[in-house]
Amino acid sequence: MEQGIIKLKREPKIISSYSVVGNKEHSGPLGELFDEYCQDDKFGKDSWEKSESEMQRRALCGAIKKSGLIDTELDVLLAGDLLNQCVGSNYSITNFDIPYLGLYGACSTCAEGLAIGACLYSGGIINSCGVMTSSHYCSSERQFRFPLEYGGQRTPTAQWTATGAGAFILGDEGRIKISEALFGKAIDKGISDVNNMGAAMAPAAIDTIKRYFLQSNHSPEDFDLIITGDLGYEGSEILKDLLLGYGVDIRKNHTDCGLMLFDRERQDVHAGASGCGCSAVVMSADIIPNLEKGVLKDVLFIGTGALMSPMSLYQGGTIPAVAHLVRLRSE
Amino acid sequence: MEQGIIKLKREPKIISSYSVVGNKEHSGPLGELFDEYCQDDKFGKDSWEKSESEMQRRALCGAIKKSGLIDTELDVLLAGDLLNQCVGSNYSITNFDIPYLGLYGACSTCAEGLAIGACLYSGGIINSCGVMTSSHYCSSERQFRFPLEYGGQRTPTAQWTATGAGAFILGDEGRIKISEALFGKAIDKGISDVNNMGAAMAPAAIDTIKRYFLQSNHSPEDFDLIITGDLGYEGSEILKDLLLGYGVDIRKNHTDCGLMLFDRERQDVHAGASGCGCSAVVMSADIIPNLEKGVLKDVLFIGTGALMSPMSLYQGGTIPAVAHLVRLRSE
Repeated sequence: MEQGIIKLKREPKIISSYSVVGNKEHSGPLGELFDEYCQDDKFGKDSWEKSESEMQRRALCGAIKKSGLIDTELDVLLAGDLLNQCVGSNYSITNFDIPYLGLYGACSTCAEGLAIGACLYSGGIINSCGVMTSSHYCSSERQFRFPLEYGGQRTPTAQWTATGAGAFILGDEGRIKISEALFGKAIDKGISDVNNMGAAMAPAAIDTIKRYFLQSNHSPEDFDLIITGDLGYEGSEILKDLLLGYGVDIRKNHTDCGLMLFDRERQDVHAGASGCGCSAVVMSADIIPNLEKGVLKDVLFIGTGALMSPMSLYQGGTIPAVAHLVRLRSE
Repeated sequence: MEQGIIKLKREPKIISSYSVVGNKEHSGPLGELFDEYCQDDKFGKDSWEKSESEMQRRALCGAIKKSGLIDTELDVLLAGDLLNQCVGSNYSITNFDIPYLGLYGACSTCAEGLAIGACLYSGGIINSCGVMTSSHYCSSERQFRFPLEYGGQRTPTAQWTATGAGAFILGDEGRIKISEALFGKAIDKGISDVNNMGAAMAPAAIDTIKRYFLQSNHSPEDFDLIITGDLGYEGSEILKDLLLGYGVDIRKNHTDCGLMLFDRERQDVHAGASGCGCSAVVMSADIIPNLEKGVLKDVLFIGTGALMSPMSLYQGGTIPAVAHLVRLRSE
């Protein structure tokens, strides 16, 4: 079927994953689950952009080490981040001897990378790959909003960019397989409020999830979890409400990576977490271990990205968004 | 072989391509070959970023129309550009009903998209796709260098960012097939001169081309053309010299998209053209038609990208680069 669900004939396994986070993330509800954190969010570097790159380097090092492979055994690395020209990834990968395909999917990058990697594996093009992404609160605030020193007030619908990097190794071994993928369409419903990314991204998630259930023989209750990343509170409510209007009720088994990373009340993060790193570290530290243990057996992960640019918004533009889906199953 | 040449079992054809350029490109040596151009480079829009998006929209429209397909028949669109957050692509694709995978490969985007698209096709994941990219001199100058009004002097090694967008449709029909792909590694040899992108990118091209000839049974003279995009004069000289040191002599059949787009003397472009759009429009307007006519039969296209960011350079960073290879053959 054109533009349809891609059922992977040769299903790649998630061999390993590794998460690196900042201090606020470590102080959150999932704090103990992350592989590594840094008290001052600097990771020993003298600029936030370099700190972000260093997080990615550590995440990929960790994931490769856990996998038992070495870098030259990986056929390709799929990576990207929120920084202009994706410098978080560009600089970290020069530490590794792996062919590099740069992605730009904003906060959907983790899902985009897993989807493309899984498809290349299924098609026999590669036998293994790495997927890597990151975001850093401090580099993102400077680039997308205001310098930190400005101390700008945040609106209730604003999300807090996660400081974190996640890396995943796909290949032959492991209990968790990627069995399906569905590439998202860019959807622009005219939202132009940079402080309401959830509302901008929800329509893309709706489009992808609706297409998934329309094309598959499944209903939402067939899955242990339908996890989006990262719509936050505002976007998650819109998603559930509007999907219900299309007859798709995901209220019982939906959650969002942006709602899991922080304690919204205690940690003052308003609508929740966002950033490429958010879904990457939540998937790596929480969902994947639970799939490995068999606590979860069948999960739909829908990575959502707001394709927003400060320059375009200054010019009166709106915020297109995209949402890519992968289905993760444990054997 | 790990990290090796990907020999595509199911070879996609290039069904169609379409090129849209600005006035300076239209006044160059290939001027008459482009499908469409705009006298004032604005394409009817009121900002350079919107003009760039509009170029992409026109390029993809044109390529789809030529292919005889409609947008919903394309399984996926692979696109990206040089602008922050890839807004050239993000906004143009909302005009189409096609799943969207965003790429960031700087000037290697055309080759990266063709390579990934070809691999997904070969693996039976998709039956057709679009590949699209662009650059615009005015949006690039503002973002990467100086505002145009500043009238900055250019060094002899500087390249001129092409104003152009190219789109390609891959699928079942056509005379030109993509038969091999080789993903590039990110190589950083410490170049930090933003006015010498050729020197920054040449090492990546050397790495990819060297790996290709090391792994294949071919020698350079087996190909009608080994075309890089876009090293310009400086980078091309470095490439040929250093490859010779490795015993790979491409001097007789090498050219570079950055040397073809403009008349370097008459058009005052110093080391030649650059930008994602450069290789896309040169491939679309010149190389592909010559493959179709049978004038060329076997071509190696190596797209090179400087993964450079103004922010990183302000912080004392260097310029990593990447080069992806695809082999194009006409039946």
